[in-house]
Amino acid sequence: MTAALLEQYRERIRTELDRVVDFWLKYSHDKEQSGFFNCLGKDGKVYDELKYVWLQGRQVWMYSRLYRTMERFHRPEILDAAKSGAAFLQKFARVQASSGPGKCAFCLTRDGRTVKVQRTIFSECFYVMAMDELSRITQDKEMQADAESMMDRLIFWVQTDSSDLSRPQLPGDPPINSMAVPMMLLCLVDQLTEGRTDVAEKYKDLSGWCVEQILQHIQRDGKAILENVTLNGKELPGCQGRLQNPGHALEAGWFLLQYALKKEDAQLQKTAVDKFMEIPFHTGWDKQHGGLFYFLDVDGHCPTQLEWNMKLWWPHCEALIAYLMAYSHSRAPLLLDRFKQIYDYTFSHFSDEEHGEWFGYLSCKGEVVLDFKGGPFKGFFHVPRCLYMCEKLLDGLLERQDS
Amino acid sequence: MTAALLEQYRERIRTELDRVVDFWLKYSHDKEQSGFFNCLGKDGKVYDELKYVWLQGRQVWMYSRLYRTMERFHRPEILDAAKSGAAFLQKFARVQASSGPGKCAFCLTRDGRTVKVQRTIFSECFYVMAMDELSRITQDKEMQADAESMMDRLIFWVQTDSSDLSRPQLPGDPPINSMAVPMMLLCLVDQLTEGRTDVAEKYKDLSGWCVEQILQHIQRDGKAILENVTLNGKELPGCQGRLQNPGHALEAGWFLLQYALKKEDAQLQKTAVDKFMEIPFHTGWDKQHGGLFYFLDVDGHCPTQLEWNMKLWWPHCEALIAYLMAYSHSRAPLLLDRFKQIYDYTFSHFSDEEHGEWFGYLSCKGEVVLDFKGGPFKGFFHVPRCLYMCEKLLDGLLERQDS
Repeated sequence: MTAALLEQYRERIRTELDRVVDFWLKYSHDKEQSGFFNCLGKDGKVYDELKYVWLQGRQVWMYSRLYRTMERFHRPEILDAAKSGAAFLQKFARVQASSGPGKCAFCLTRDGRTVKVQRTIFSECFYVMAMDELSRITQDKEMQADAESMMDRLIFWVQTDSSDLSRPQLPGDPPINSMAVPMMLLCLVDQLTEGRTDVAEKYKDLSGWCVEQILQHIQRDGKAILENVTLNGKELPGCQGRLQNPGHALEAGWFLLQYALKKEDAQLQKTAVDKFMEIPFHTGWDKQHGGLFYFLDVDGHCPTQLEWNMKLWWPHCEALIAYLMAYSHSRAPLLLDRFKQIYDYTFSHFSDEEHGEWFGYLSCKGEVVLDFKGGPFKGFFHVPRCLYMCEKLLDGLLERQDS
Repeated sequence: MTAALLEQYRERIRTELDRVVDFWLKYSHDKEQSGFFNCLGKDGKVYDELKYVWLQGRQVWMYSRLYRTMERFHRPEILDAAKSGAAFLQKFARVQASSGPGKCAFCLTRDGRTVKVQRTIFSECFYVMAMDELSRITQDKEMQADAESMMDRLIFWVQTDSSDLSRPQLPGDPPINSMAVPMMLLCLVDQLTEGRTDVAEKYKDLSGWCVEQILQHIQRDGKAILENVTLNGKELPGCQGRLQNPGHALEAGWFLLQYALKKEDAQLQKTAVDKFMEIPFHTGWDKQHGGLFYFLDVDGHCPTQLEWNMKLWWPHCEALIAYLMAYSHSRAPLLLDRFKQIYDYTFSHFSDEEHGEWFGYLSCKGEVVLDFKGGPFKGFFHVPRCLYMCEKLLDGLLERQDS
């Protein structure tokens, strides 16, 4: 019975991944100026030519990962697209001007001029992911070194001195532990260390630090995952301190579980599931209309983010990966139930039968509110990564089922 | 017939203004540390102690204006509250650190430490409004000079050199004409010049410049008001260039009309109504569910702002002022119809019968989505300014009706 269900999931997920890849191959390539168009309407038409560095890096990473690890995507056009995106990034992503060495832009014009620079580390993170993954295919040592040197710069910013980010220290805004930062670094360590014991050794302390920082977000006697805490793991005052982001907690959950499985750390595996998957499900699932809320306040106040009750695609993508990974490891039926519940909502609400790819932004009640397929924060990443990870997990599950 | 209707509006608006003032007097005063709490839940309870400089300045201005110009608000507690807010601002709003002279914070802790600084001019604008209006009551020459010197700094930033704002010039992001800037400066000129011919003479060129800059936003052969244009009044590429903000256009409309009435400029009066009031009504009104959309794309693409189809309180406030001011001047029945249509939606959707004040954020279909009364961008300003302006306009209309 379960095998048949899993097979059914795998079939749908595989088909969906093919359709999503086709959509971006068909509509997003800038054949004149290289790189990718990010702003694609529901039918794939470009409605803005701006190029967002997060999304350029993510698309290079995703194409490269698919090319390297899935036979049916081992196609020249996919590798060529990844190379085009990487060349665009290497040529244009780094900001000149007053910013410190290595600082990357957030947004570029079609021809690579800087439009916006964020005072955070995420453009650089996706730059690292892109260059590392592509260099694994091309064996380009310079590109690999570029990724590692950017990684070292990132670690310096996070652990030693963030002044290159031009973020002034303000007396009422002391540094905090925001979940995104250790999550992102843990993800990068996973990326950079695959199959490389020397690099794994180099980043051993860093990954331990990331895990510790992530675990500090378990608050309220283990009953809540809070998005922002103090540097020593205490609750912050006000809205910032009470903020919950269920999708982000779930993503942290599978990052942690993946790490714990590699380390064979049973305690951490349990924490990943019990805290970072069960809690956001109970707090984040909308019992009335279905779907995961975007933001919640742990004390039940109304969040101040206008989109708090909207249903976004990416938390659902992360939830699918999280529950399937957890089920795949423990075979606990409850975790398959969670997967099923998220799967049913996700495939019936986000996937666009007509033009392919997924809608990204639904109202609380599940109606499509923004109908574009690509935008400033939605690119070729969460959907294909989710489908890719789930297909791999289902392959593993069904293989073991057969044997 | 019309007189009875106008009387009915005035009665409701007057009652509503009293209730709104009572709400903020009761819940927003920080009696220990001075200044105002901005984050108030639906029942007035403080859910975050942060103090937003825009909102502190606006509250000082509004209390002072009510005290100065409406007899029933000429009460010591209102003046004392304005003074407390102004003292808090004078003590804490200016950023020390690396920012240029005069730069104000965007957000402060309860005890006045800087949390966030925006690289824009708006904190400083509301600082000017606050100090000028309060000094008209107290005859505090130093405070008036403080307002004027901040105003001169603002003009310098906008017209000469913006480097104090720490906004780096980026090659893909040339300076643009964003409607907020000339609107805000025109509003400040109106504030500073009331009853002062010498000051009016000083800012004569500036107000002409503001009007010219605002008129540049009339685009597409006079058929659209666009929020952002180039410095020489051409359309910008992409989403930024196609953005329409109907509430903002309507606010610009009554700023322009007010200016044109003072100047007795019949052509500009007509432009204010035909372009800045009629166009946003036709493009912005949601024919299906009622209410004004927050953002629209002039070519019908989906805006990338997640809140684009929400119904926010402030565009409705600005629309009420705009149509009543226009009607008050021309007595054209169509303008009273517009007022009526906005009024009916506004009073039936935003006003909270139970706890007083207005909700700020509705879904496209008109349900309350964020139920707080005060938040990072909603304070004691748009609602009371609207009710105050409308009451004054109705007084004028009914007086003339009687005579």
